[in-house]
Amino acid sequence: MIVFLNGDFVPEEEARISVFDRAFLYGDGLFETLRISNGKPFRWAQHLERLQHGQRFLKLQPPFGVEELETFANELLKLNQMREAVMRLTISRGTGQRGYTTKGTERPTVVMTLHPVTSRGPESSHAGWRLQTSSIRIAATDPLAAFKTCNKLPQILARSEADAAGADEALVSNTDGYVVEGTSSNLFWIEKESVCTPPLSIGVLPGVTRAAVFELCDKMGLPIRETVLTAEQLVRTEGVFLSLSTLGIVPALELNKESLAQSPLIQRIRAEYCGLLRVETQR
Amino acid sequence: MIVFLNGDFVPEEEARISVFDRAFLYGDGLFETLRISNGKPFRWAQHLERLQHGQRFLKLQPPFGVEELETFANELLKLNQMREAVMRLTISRGTGQRGYTTKGTERPTVVMTLHPVTSRGPESSHAGWRLQTSSIRIAATDPLAAFKTCNKLPQILARSEADAAGADEALVSNTDGYVVEGTSSNLFWIEKESVCTPPLSIGVLPGVTRAAVFELCDKMGLPIRETVLTAEQLVRTEGVFLSLSTLGIVPALELNKESLAQSPLIQRIRAEYCGLLRVETQR
Repeated sequence: MIVFLNGDFVPEEEARISVFDRAFLYGDGLFETLRISNGKPFRWAQHLERLQHGQRFLKLQPPFGVEELETFANELLKLNQMREAVMRLTISRGTGQRGYTTKGTERPTVVMTLHPVTSRGPESSHAGWRLQTSSIRIAATDPLAAFKTCNKLPQILARSEADAAGADEALVSNTDGYVVEGTSSNLFWIEKESVCTPPLSIGVLPGVTRAAVFELCDKMGLPIRETVLTAEQLVRTEGVFLSLSTLGIVPALELNKESLAQSPLIQRIRAEYCGLLRVETQR
Repeated sequence: MIVFLNGDFVPEEEARISVFDRAFLYGDGLFETLRISNGKPFRWAQHLERLQHGQRFLKLQPPFGVEELETFANELLKLNQMREAVMRLTISRGTGQRGYTTKGTERPTVVMTLHPVTSRGPESSHAGWRLQTSSIRIAATDPLAAFKTCNKLPQILARSEADAAGADEALVSNTDGYVVEGTSSNLFWIEKESVCTPPLSIGVLPGVTRAAVFELCDKMGLPIRETVLTAEQLVRTEGVFLSLSTLGIVPALELNKESLAQSPLIQRIRAEYCGLLRVETQR
Protein backbone atom coordinates (compact mmCIF):
# COMPACT_ATOMS: atom_id res chain seq x y z
CA MET A 1 0.00 0.00 0.00
CA ILE A 2 1.25 3.45 -0.95
CA VAL A 3 0.52 6.37 1.39
CA PHE A 4 0.48 10.10 0.63
CA LEU A 5 2.59 12.03 3.14
CA ASN A 6 3.32 15.76 2.82
CA GLY A 7 3.59 15.74 -0.97
CA ASP A 8 5.32 12.37 -1.31
CA PHE A 9 4.01 8.90 -2.13
CA VAL A 10 5.69 6.35 0.13
CA PRO A 11 5.25 2.67 1.03
CA GLU A 12 3.13 2.38 4.19
CA GLU A 13 5.99 1.04 6.30
CA GLU A 14 7.91 4.25 5.51
CA ALA A 15 4.92 6.52 6.19
CA ARG A 16 6.12 7.86 9.52
CA ILE A 17 5.74 11.16 11.30
CA SER A 18 7.65 12.86 14.09
CA VAL A 19 6.89 11.96 17.72
CA PHE A 20 6.64 15.77 18.12
CA ASP A 21 3.70 15.99 15.71
CA ARG A 22 0.85 17.74 17.51
CA ALA A 23 -1.78 15.28 16.31
CA PHE A 24 0.20 12.55 18.10
CA LEU A 25 0.75 14.71 21.21
CA TYR A 26 -2.67 16.37 21.54
CA GLY A 27 -4.96 15.20 18.72
CA ASP A 28 -4.39 18.68 17.24
CA GLY A 29 -5.76 17.98 13.77
CA LEU A 30 -8.74 17.23 11.56
CA PHE A 31 -9.69 14.40 9.27
CA GLU A 32 -12.16 13.29 6.65
CA THR A 33 -13.17 9.76 5.71
CA LEU A 34 -14.38 9.43 2.13
CA ARG A 35 -15.92 6.61 0.17
CA ILE A 36 -14.09 5.73 -3.03
CA SER A 37 -16.33 4.13 -5.65
CA ASN A 38 -15.42 3.26 -9.23
CA GLY A 39 -11.99 4.72 -8.43
CA LYS A 40 -13.45 8.14 -7.58
CA PRO A 41 -13.92 9.95 -4.26
CA PHE A 42 -17.66 10.38 -3.59
CA ARG A 43 -18.70 13.91 -2.60
CA TRP A 44 -15.11 15.15 -2.50
CA ALA A 45 -16.21 18.81 -2.62
CA GLN A 46 -18.50 18.44 0.40
CA HIS A 47 -15.83 16.68 2.46
CA LEU A 48 -13.26 19.32 1.56
CA GLU A 49 -15.70 22.09 2.42
CA ARG A 50 -16.20 20.65 5.92
CA LEU A 51 -12.45 20.22 6.30
CA GLN A 52 -11.83 23.85 5.31
CA HIS A 53 -14.49 24.98 7.76
CA GLY A 54 -12.62 23.11 10.50
CA GLN A 55 -9.28 24.49 9.36
CA ARG A 56 -10.59 28.03 9.68
CA PHE A 57 -11.97 27.25 13.16
CA LEU A 58 -8.68 25.74 14.38
CA LYS A 59 -6.60 28.34 12.48
CA LEU A 60 -4.77 25.58 10.65
CA GLN A 61 -2.98 26.72 7.50
CA PRO A 62 -2.99 23.82 5.04
CA PRO A 63 0.12 23.59 2.85
CA PHE A 64 -1.87 22.42 -0.20
CA GLY A 65 -4.87 23.88 -1.99
CA VAL A 66 -8.06 21.91 -2.60
CA GLU A 67 -7.30 21.24 -6.28
CA GLU A 68 -3.78 20.17 -5.44
CA LEU A 69 -5.13 17.75 -2.80
CA GLU A 70 -7.57 16.31 -5.33
CA THR A 71 -4.73 15.71 -7.79
CA PHE A 72 -2.76 13.96 -5.03
CA ALA A 73 -5.82 11.88 -4.08
CA ASN A 74 -6.33 10.73 -7.67
CA GLU A 75 -2.64 9.88 -7.99
CA LEU A 76 -2.84 7.86 -4.77
CA LEU A 77 -5.83 5.92 -6.10
CA LYS A 78 -3.99 5.21 -9.35
CA LEU A 79 -0.83 4.06 -7.56
CA ASN A 80 -2.79 1.65 -5.37
CA GLN A 81 -5.18 0.61 -8.14
CA MET A 82 -8.14 0.62 -5.79
CA ARG A 83 -11.65 1.08 -7.25
CA GLU A 84 -13.67 0.47 -4.08
CA ALA A 85 -12.07 1.80 -0.94
CA VAL A 86 -12.20 4.17 2.01
CA MET A 87 -9.83 7.14 2.02
CA ARG A 88 -8.73 8.90 5.15
CA LEU A 89 -7.35 12.43 4.78
CA THR A 90 -5.67 13.83 7.91
CA ILE A 91 -4.37 17.35 8.49
CA SER A 92 -2.38 17.84 11.68
CA ARG A 93 -0.90 21.10 12.93
CA GLY A 94 2.55 19.52 12.63
CA THR A 95 5.40 20.25 15.03
CA GLY A 96 5.86 23.30 17.23
CA GLN A 97 6.99 24.25 20.70
CA ARG A 98 6.06 22.03 23.67
CA GLY A 99 2.70 22.83 25.23
CA TYR A 100 -0.76 23.85 24.10
CA THR A 101 0.10 27.16 22.50
CA THR A 102 -0.05 27.10 18.71
CA LYS A 103 2.55 29.88 18.48
CA GLY A 104 5.56 28.82 16.46
CA THR A 105 3.90 25.82 14.86
CA GLU A 106 5.34 25.01 11.51
CA ARG A 107 4.05 23.34 8.37
CA PRO A 108 0.99 21.10 8.93
CA THR A 109 1.27 17.37 8.27
CA VAL A 110 -0.99 16.03 5.50
CA VAL A 111 -1.63 12.30 5.16
CA MET A 112 -3.91 10.30 2.85
CA THR A 113 -4.34 6.57 3.30
CA LEU A 114 -6.56 3.99 1.59
CA HIS A 115 -8.36 1.16 3.34
CA PRO A 116 -10.62 -1.69 2.22
CA VAL A 117 -14.38 -1.13 2.56
CA THR A 118 -15.23 -3.28 5.55
CA SER A 119 -18.73 -3.79 6.77
CA ARG A 120 -19.52 -4.66 10.32
CA GLY A 121 -22.63 -6.20 11.77
CA PRO A 122 -24.40 -9.52 11.87
CA GLU A 123 -24.09 -10.17 8.13
CA SER A 124 -21.30 -9.36 5.74
CA SER A 125 -23.82 -7.52 3.56
CA HIS A 126 -24.32 -5.22 6.58
CA ALA A 127 -28.08 -5.81 6.59
CA GLY A 128 -28.17 -3.69 9.67
CA TRP A 129 -26.59 -2.72 12.94
CA ARG A 130 -27.32 -3.60 16.52
CA LEU A 131 -27.11 -0.37 18.51
CA GLN A 132 -26.18 0.19 22.12
CA THR A 133 -26.57 3.36 24.16
CA SER A 134 -23.35 4.51 25.84
CA SER A 135 -22.53 6.20 29.10
CA ILE A 136 -20.64 8.95 27.24
CA ARG A 137 -22.26 12.40 27.29
CA ILE A 138 -21.02 15.14 25.00
CA ALA A 139 -21.40 18.78 26.08
CA ALA A 140 -24.40 20.21 24.23
CA THR A 141 -22.42 23.46 23.90
CA ASP A 142 -19.13 21.99 22.66
CA PRO A 143 -18.01 24.08 19.65
CA LEU A 144 -15.68 21.24 18.59
CA ALA A 145 -18.65 18.90 18.04
CA ALA A 146 -19.20 20.58 14.67
CA PHE A 147 -15.82 19.41 13.33
CA LYS A 148 -14.23 16.06 12.59
CA THR A 149 -11.23 16.51 14.84
CA CYS A 150 -8.54 14.05 15.88
CA ASN A 151 -9.92 14.11 19.47
CA LYS A 152 -11.95 10.92 19.39
CA LEU A 153 -11.58 9.34 22.83
CA PRO A 154 -15.28 9.82 23.72
CA GLN A 155 -16.18 7.93 20.54
CA ILE A 156 -13.58 5.25 21.28
CA LEU A 157 -14.96 4.75 24.80
CA ALA A 158 -18.55 4.60 23.55
CA ARG A 159 -17.60 2.14 20.81
CA SER A 160 -15.77 -0.03 23.38
CA GLU A 161 -18.97 -0.22 25.42
CA ALA A 162 -20.87 -1.27 22.28
CA ASP A 163 -18.20 -3.86 21.42
CA ALA A 164 -18.43 -5.26 24.95
CA ALA A 165 -22.22 -5.55 24.61
CA GLY A 166 -21.88 -7.34 21.26
CA ALA A 167 -23.36 -4.38 19.37
CA ASP A 168 -22.11 -2.80 16.14
CA GLU A 169 -22.42 0.89 16.95
CA ALA A 170 -22.89 3.06 20.04
CA LEU A 171 -25.33 5.94 20.37
CA VAL A 172 -24.00 9.02 22.14
CA SER A 173 -26.26 11.44 24.03
CA ASN A 174 -25.55 15.01 25.08
CA THR A 175 -25.52 16.54 28.56
CA ASP A 176 -29.22 17.45 28.11
CA GLY A 177 -30.07 13.74 27.70
CA TYR A 178 -30.92 13.78 23.99
CA VAL A 179 -29.49 11.28 21.53
CA VAL A 180 -26.99 13.06 19.27
CA GLU A 181 -25.49 10.50 16.89
CA GLY A 182 -23.55 7.25 16.57
CA THR A 183 -19.79 7.27 17.13
CA SER A 184 -19.10 7.23 13.38
CA SER A 185 -22.58 7.85 11.99
CA ASN A 186 -25.50 10.29 12.04
CA LEU A 187 -28.85 9.15 13.38
CA PHE A 188 -32.27 9.18 11.69
CA TRP A 189 -35.63 7.74 12.62
CA ILE A 190 -39.08 7.49 11.05
CA GLU A 191 -42.12 8.94 12.78
CA LYS A 192 -45.54 9.37 11.14
CA GLU A 193 -44.02 8.85 7.68
CA SER A 194 -41.54 11.68 8.34
CA VAL A 195 -37.77 11.30 8.38
CA CYS A 196 -36.41 12.78 11.62
CA THR A 197 -32.89 13.60 12.83
CA PRO A 198 -31.40 15.71 15.65
CA PRO A 199 -30.53 19.32 14.72
CA LEU A 200 -26.84 20.23 14.37
CA SER A 201 -27.25 22.65 17.30
CA ILE A 202 -27.37 19.87 19.93
CA GLY A 203 -23.80 18.74 19.15
CA VAL A 204 -24.27 16.80 15.91
CA LEU A 205 -21.37 16.39 13.47
CA PRO A 206 -22.57 17.77 10.10
CA GLY A 207 -22.16 14.51 8.18
CA VAL A 208 -21.73 14.62 4.42
CA THR A 209 -24.03 11.59 4.12
CA ARG A 210 -26.50 13.28 6.51
CA ALA A 211 -26.69 16.17 4.04
CA ALA A 212 -27.20 13.66 1.18
CA VAL A 213 -30.17 12.15 3.07
CA PHE A 214 -31.74 15.62 3.24
CA GLU A 215 -31.27 15.98 -0.54
CA LEU A 216 -32.75 12.55 -1.22
CA CYS A 217 -35.79 13.08 1.01
CA ASP A 218 -36.42 16.34 -0.76
CA LYS A 219 -36.21 14.59 -4.14
CA MET A 220 -38.45 11.71 -2.93
CA GLY A 221 -41.04 14.11 -1.49
CA LEU A 222 -40.50 12.80 2.04
CA PRO A 223 -40.93 15.34 4.84
CA ILE A 224 -37.78 15.74 6.93
CA ARG A 225 -37.86 17.10 10.46
CA GLU A 226 -35.03 18.14 12.81
CA THR A 227 -36.06 17.34 16.35
CA VAL A 228 -34.79 15.76 19.55
CA LEU A 229 -35.63 12.62 21.46
CA THR A 230 -34.22 10.31 24.11
CA ALA A 231 -32.93 6.79 23.59
CA GLU A 232 -36.05 5.42 25.33
CA GLN A 233 -38.28 7.21 22.80
CA LEU A 234 -36.19 5.96 19.89
CA VAL A 235 -37.32 2.37 20.51
CA ARG A 236 -40.96 3.34 19.92
CA THR A 237 -40.42 4.95 16.49
CA GLU A 238 -41.29 3.33 13.13
CA GLY A 239 -37.67 2.64 12.34
CA VAL A 240 -34.11 3.87 12.86
CA PHE A 241 -31.18 4.18 10.49
CA LEU A 242 -27.65 5.54 10.47
CA SER A 243 -25.78 7.43 7.76
CA LEU A 244 -22.02 7.42 7.24
CA SER A 245 -19.66 8.08 4.36
CA THR A 246 -18.01 4.66 4.31
CA LEU A 247 -21.18 2.53 4.18
CA GLY A 248 -23.96 4.97 3.25
CA ILE A 249 -27.33 4.09 4.80
CA VAL A 250 -27.39 1.36 7.46
CA PRO A 251 -30.71 0.25 9.00
CA ALA A 252 -30.69 -0.31 12.76
CA LEU A 253 -31.93 -3.78 13.75
CA GLU A 254 -32.04 -3.36 17.49
CA LEU A 255 -31.27 -0.93 20.32
CA ASN A 256 -30.00 -2.34 23.62
CA LYS A 257 -31.14 -5.77 22.35
CA GLU A 258 -34.73 -4.59 21.74
CA SER A 259 -35.94 -5.07 18.16
CA LEU A 260 -36.67 -1.92 16.20
CA ALA A 261 -39.52 -1.46 13.72
CA GLN A 262 -38.46 -1.59 10.08
CA SER A 263 -40.27 1.15 8.17
CA PRO A 264 -40.18 0.40 4.42
CA LEU A 265 -39.06 4.01 3.92
CA ILE A 266 -35.58 3.04 5.14
CA GLN A 267 -34.97 0.60 2.29
CA ARG A 268 -36.33 3.14 -0.20
CA ILE A 269 -33.90 5.81 1.06
CA ARG A 270 -31.10 3.27 1.01
CA ALA A 271 -31.80 2.32 -2.60
CA GLU A 272 -31.91 6.00 -3.61
CA TYR A 273 -28.57 6.58 -1.87
CA CYS A 274 -26.97 3.65 -3.71
CA GLY A 275 -28.28 5.16 -6.95
CA LEU A 276 -26.78 8.55 -6.09
CA LEU A 277 -23.39 7.00 -5.31
CA ARG A 278 -23.47 5.10 -8.61
CA VAL A 279 -24.53 8.08 -10.71
CA GLU A 280 -22.03 10.53 -9.23
CA THR A 281 -19.06 8.17 -9.47
CA GLN A 282 -19.80 6.89 -13.00
CA ARG A 283 -19.34 10.34 -14.52
CA MET B 1 18.62 15.24 21.56
CA ILE B 2 18.05 11.53 22.11
CA VAL B 3 14.48 10.24 22.34
CA PHE B 4 13.17 7.03 23.90
CA LEU B 5 10.92 5.16 21.46
CA ASN B 6 9.54 1.68 22.18
CA GLY B 7 12.62 0.42 23.98
CA ASP B 8 15.18 2.15 21.75
CA PHE B 9 17.15 5.36 22.18
CA VAL B 10 17.22 7.26 18.90
CA PRO B 11 18.20 10.74 17.67
CA GLU B 12 15.14 13.01 17.61
CA GLU B 13 15.08 13.27 13.81
CA GLU B 14 14.75 9.46 13.67
CA ALA B 15 12.05 9.35 16.37
CA ARG B 16 9.14 8.65 14.06
CA ILE B 17 5.92 6.71 14.41
CA SER B 18 3.48 5.22 11.95
CA VAL B 19 0.79 7.42 10.38
CA PHE B 20 -1.52 4.60 11.51
CA ASP B 21 -0.71 5.17 15.18
CA ARG B 22 -4.00 5.76 17.02
CA ALA B 23 -2.67 8.72 19.01
CA PHE B 24 -2.04 10.46 15.67
CA LEU B 25 -5.43 9.37 14.25
CA TYR B 26 -7.68 9.87 17.29
CA GLY B 27 -5.60 11.11 20.23
CA ASP B 28 -5.99 7.56 21.61
CA GLY B 29 -3.35 7.77 24.31
CA LEU B 30 -2.21 9.23 27.62
CA PHE B 31 0.73 11.30 28.72
CA GLU B 32 2.56 12.66 31.73
CA THR B 33 4.75 15.75 31.96
CA LEU B 34 7.35 15.55 34.73
CA ARG B 35 9.83 18.00 36.13
CA ILE B 36 13.43 16.82 36.09
CA SER B 37 15.56 18.45 38.77
CA ASN B 38 19.13 17.62 39.68
CA GLY B 39 18.92 14.94 36.97
CA LYS B 40 16.02 13.18 38.71
CA PRO B 41 12.32 12.97 37.87
CA PHE B 42 10.32 14.70 40.62
CA ARG B 43 7.37 12.68 41.98
CA TRP B 44 7.86 9.89 39.45
CA ALA B 45 5.76 7.45 41.50
CA GLN B 46 2.77 9.83 41.61
CA HIS B 47 2.92 10.51 37.87
CA LEU B 48 3.15 6.80 37.10
CA GLU B 49 0.25 6.07 39.42
CA ARG B 50 -1.95 8.53 37.54
CA LEU B 51 -0.77 7.09 34.23
CA GLN B 52 -1.64 3.56 35.36
CA HIS B 53 -5.05 4.72 36.51
CA GLY B 54 -5.64 6.12 33.02
CA GLN B 55 -4.32 2.96 31.39
CA ARG B 56 -6.82 0.89 33.32
CA PHE B 57 -9.64 3.24 32.35
CA LEU B 58 -8.74 3.18 28.65
CA LYS B 59 -7.85 -0.55 28.76
CA LEU B 60 -4.39 0.20 27.46
CA GLN B 61 -1.86 -2.57 28.02
CA PRO B 62 1.57 -0.97 28.47
CA PRO B 63 4.47 -3.02 27.08
CA PHE B 64 6.79 -1.97 29.92
CA GLY B 65 6.47 -2.21 33.68
CA VAL B 66 6.88 0.82 35.95
CA GLU B 67 10.41 -0.13 37.08
CA GLU B 68 11.45 -0.79 33.51
CA LEU B 69 10.15 2.64 32.47
CA GLU B 70 12.05 4.26 35.31
CA THR B 71 15.26 2.58 34.17
CA PHE B 72 14.62 3.84 30.63
CA ALA B 73 13.89 7.35 31.92
CA ASN B 74 17.14 7.44 33.88
CA GLU B 75 19.08 6.15 30.87
CA LEU B 76 17.49 8.88 28.71
CA LEU B 77 18.53 11.55 31.20
CA LYS B 78 22.08 10.22 31.24
CA LEU B 79 22.30 10.08 27.43
CA ASN B 80 21.13 13.70 27.13
CA GLN B 81 23.06 14.92 30.17
CA MET B 82 20.18 17.09 31.29
CA ARG B 83 19.93 18.08 34.97
CA GLU B 84 17.05 20.55 34.73
CA ALA B 85 14.41 19.60 32.20
CA VAL B 86 10.83 18.65 31.46
CA MET B 87 10.12 15.05 30.48
CA ARG B 88 7.10 14.01 28.47
CA LEU B 89 6.07 10.36 28.64
CA THR B 90 3.45 9.32 26.08
CA ILE B 91 1.64 5.99 25.80
CA SER B 92 -0.47 5.55 22.68
CA ARG B 93 -2.63 2.54 21.84
CA GLY B 94 -0.43 1.98 18.77
CA THR B 95 -1.76 0.67 15.46
CA GLY B 96 -4.92 -1.36 14.86
CA GLN B 97 -7.79 -1.64 12.43
CA ARG B 98 -9.31 1.52 10.92
CA GLY B 99 -12.08 3.04 13.03
CA TYR B 100 -12.87 3.63 16.67
CA THR B 101 -12.99 0.02 17.83
CA THR B 102 -9.99 -0.98 19.93
CA LYS B 103 -10.34 -4.61 18.82
CA GLY B 104 -7.21 -5.89 17.15
CA THR B 105 -4.96 -3.12 18.43
CA GLU B 106 -1.40 -4.19 18.81
CA ARG B 107 1.50 -3.13 20.98
CA PRO B 108 1.18 0.38 22.43
CA THR B 109 3.70 3.05 21.43
CA VAL B 110 5.81 4.44 24.29
CA VAL B 111 7.76 7.68 23.85
CA MET B 112 9.84 9.74 26.27
CA THR B 113 11.24 13.12 25.27
CA LEU B 114 13.15 15.81 27.15
CA HIS B 115 12.60 19.53 26.81
CA PRO B 116 14.18 22.65 28.33
CA VAL B 117 12.35 24.19 31.29
CA THR B 118 10.80 27.28 29.73
CA SER B 119 8.89 29.80 31.70
CA ARG B 120 6.26 32.01 30.19
CA GLY B 121 4.86 35.26 31.44
CA PRO B 122 5.89 38.86 31.79
CA GLU B 123 9.28 38.08 33.33
CA SER B 124 11.70 35.30 32.64
CA SER B 125 11.62 34.40 36.32
CA HIS B 126 7.89 33.72 35.82
CA ALA B 127 6.96 36.08 38.65
CA GLY B 128 3.37 35.39 37.76
CA TRP B 129 0.84 34.78 35.05
CA ARG B 130 -1.80 36.95 33.47
CA LEU B 131 -4.95 34.82 33.23
CA GLN B 132 -7.77 35.00 30.75
CA THR B 133 -11.14 33.23 30.96
CA SER B 134 -11.98 31.20 27.86
CA SER B 135 -15.16 30.40 25.99
CA ILE B 136 -14.44 26.66 26.31
CA ARG B 137 -16.77 24.70 28.61
CA ILE B 138 -15.94 21.17 29.66
CA ALA B 139 -18.77 18.76 30.46
CA ALA B 140 -19.05 18.55 34.25
CA THR B 141 -19.78 14.82 33.84
CA ASP B 142 -16.93 13.96 31.44
CA PRO B 143 -15.21 10.82 32.79
CA LEU B 144 -12.14 11.61 30.64
CA ALA B 145 -11.52 14.84 32.58
CA ALA B 146 -9.86 12.74 35.30
CA PHE B 147 -7.08 11.58 32.98
CA LYS B 148 -4.26 13.25 31.09
CA THR B 149 -5.29 12.05 27.65
CA CYS B 150 -3.96 13.00 24.22
CA ASN B 151 -7.32 14.73 23.46
CA LYS B 152 -6.32 18.30 24.16
CA LEU B 153 -8.12 20.43 21.57
CA PRO B 154 -10.30 22.19 24.19
CA GLN B 155 -7.11 23.21 26.02
CA ILE B 156 -5.48 24.29 22.75
CA LEU B 157 -8.48 26.45 21.83
CA ALA B 158 -8.60 28.01 25.29
CA ARG B 159 -4.87 28.70 25.23
CA SER B 160 -5.19 30.29 21.77
CA GLU B 161 -7.80 32.66 23.18
CA ALA B 162 -5.41 33.55 26.02
CA ASP B 163 -2.53 34.03 23.57
CA ALA B 164 -4.71 36.34 21.47
CA ALA B 165 -5.55 38.38 24.59
CA GLY B 166 -1.87 38.65 25.53
CA ALA B 167 -2.35 36.42 28.59
CA ASP B 168 -0.15 33.55 29.78
CA GLU B 169 -2.77 30.96 30.70
CA ALA B 170 -6.49 30.39 30.11
CA LEU B 171 -9.03 29.39 32.73
CA VAL B 172 -11.55 26.76 31.68
CA SER B 173 -15.04 26.53 33.20
CA ASN B 174 -17.44 23.59 33.17
CA THR B 175 -20.97 23.41 31.77
CA ASP B 176 -22.31 24.41 35.22
CA GLY B 177 -20.41 27.71 35.00
CA TYR B 178 -17.75 26.99 37.64
CA VAL B 179 -14.04 27.53 37.04
CA VAL B 180 -12.32 24.15 36.77
CA GLU B 181 -8.63 24.73 36.07
CA GLY B 182 -6.07 26.27 33.73
CA THR B 183 -5.26 24.52 30.45
CA SER B 184 -2.04 23.08 31.88
CA SER B 185 -2.42 23.92 35.56
CA ASN B 186 -4.66 23.46 38.57
CA LEU B 187 -6.28 26.47 40.18
CA PHE B 188 -6.09 27.67 43.81
CA TRP B 189 -7.23 30.81 45.53
CA ILE B 190 -7.01 32.28 49.03
CA GLU B 191 -10.13 33.17 50.96
CA LYS B 192 -10.23 34.05 54.68
CA GLU B 193 -6.70 32.66 55.14
CA SER B 194 -7.82 29.31 53.67
CA VAL B 195 -6.38 27.74 50.55
CA CYS B 196 -9.26 26.84 48.20
CA THR B 197 -9.45 24.75 45.02
CA PRO B 198 -12.25 23.15 42.99
CA PRO B 199 -13.05 19.51 43.88
CA LEU B 200 -12.02 16.80 41.40
CA SER B 201 -15.70 15.94 40.92
CA ILE B 202 -16.42 19.03 38.79
CA GLY B 203 -14.04 17.90 36.03
CA VAL B 204 -10.63 18.74 37.52
CA LEU B 205 -7.51 16.86 36.38
CA PRO B 206 -5.93 15.35 39.52
CA GLY B 207 -2.63 17.18 39.23
CA VAL B 208 0.46 15.74 40.90
CA THR B 209 1.46 19.26 41.97
CA ARG B 210 -2.13 19.87 43.18
CA ALA B 211 -1.68 16.89 45.51
CA ALA B 212 1.67 18.29 46.65
CA VAL B 213 -0.04 21.60 47.57
CA PHE B 214 -2.46 19.64 49.77
CA GLU B 215 0.51 17.98 51.49
CA LEU B 216 2.30 21.29 52.01
CA CYS B 217 -0.78 23.07 53.40
CA ASP B 218 -1.23 20.21 55.81
CA LYS B 219 2.40 20.50 56.91
CA MET B 220 2.15 24.32 57.17
CA GLY B 221 -1.07 24.14 59.19
CA LEU B 222 -3.04 25.99 56.51
CA PRO B 223 -6.68 24.99 56.16
CA ILE B 224 -7.50 23.72 52.65
CA ARG B 225 -11.01 23.72 51.29
CA GLU B 226 -12.44 22.15 48.11
CA THR B 227 -15.21 24.39 46.82
CA VAL B 228 -16.52 26.00 43.64
CA LEU B 229 -16.74 29.54 42.35
CA THR B 230 -17.20 31.49 39.15
CA ALA B 231 -14.56 33.52 37.33
CA GLU B 232 -16.29 36.71 38.48
CA GLN B 233 -15.94 35.65 42.13
CA LEU B 234 -12.28 34.73 41.63
CA VAL B 235 -11.35 38.40 41.11
CA ARG B 236 -12.58 39.26 44.59
CA THR B 237 -10.50 36.66 46.47
CA GLU B 238 -7.31 37.39 48.46
CA GLY B 239 -5.11 35.86 45.77
CA VAL B 240 -4.95 33.24 43.03
CA PHE B 241 -2.24 30.77 42.06
CA LEU B 242 -1.73 27.89 39.67
CA SER B 243 0.09 24.61 40.18
CA LEU B 244 1.76 22.56 37.46
CA SER B 245 4.51 19.98 37.32
CA THR B 246 6.82 21.86 35.00
CA LEU B 247 6.95 25.16 36.95
CA GLY B 248 5.53 24.32 40.37
CA ILE B 249 3.60 27.20 41.97
CA VAL B 250 2.85 30.23 39.81
CA PRO B 251 1.08 33.29 41.31
CA ALA B 252 -1.61 34.88 39.14
CA LEU B 253 -1.06 38.60 38.55
CA GLU B 254 -4.29 39.43 36.78
CA LEU B 255 -7.49 37.94 35.42
CA ASN B 256 -8.97 39.43 32.25
CA LYS B 257 -6.62 42.39 32.79
CA GLU B 258 -7.94 43.07 36.32
CA SER B 259 -5.26 42.99 39.00
CA LEU B 260 -5.54 40.22 41.58
CA ALA B 261 -4.76 40.54 45.27
CA GLN B 262 -1.43 39.01 46.33
CA SER B 263 -1.93 37.13 49.60
CA PRO B 264 1.48 36.56 51.27
CA LEU B 265 0.41 32.91 51.73
CA ILE B 266 1.10 32.31 48.04
CA GLN B 267 4.81 33.13 48.31
CA ARG B 268 5.04 31.01 51.47
CA ILE B 269 3.50 28.00 49.68
CA ARG B 270 5.77 28.62 46.72
CA ALA B 271 8.88 28.65 48.90
CA GLU B 272 7.78 25.43 50.62
CA TYR B 273 7.24 23.81 47.23
CA CYS B 274 10.71 24.80 46.04
CA GLY B 275 12.07 23.27 49.25
CA LEU B 276 10.16 20.02 48.62
CA LEU B 277 11.48 19.81 45.05
CA ARG B 278 15.02 20.36 46.26
CA VAL B 279 14.84 17.88 49.13
CA GLU B 280 13.26 15.07 47.10
CA THR B 281 15.64 15.40 44.15
CA GLN B 282 18.84 15.75 46.22
CA ARG B 283 18.45 12.28 47.68
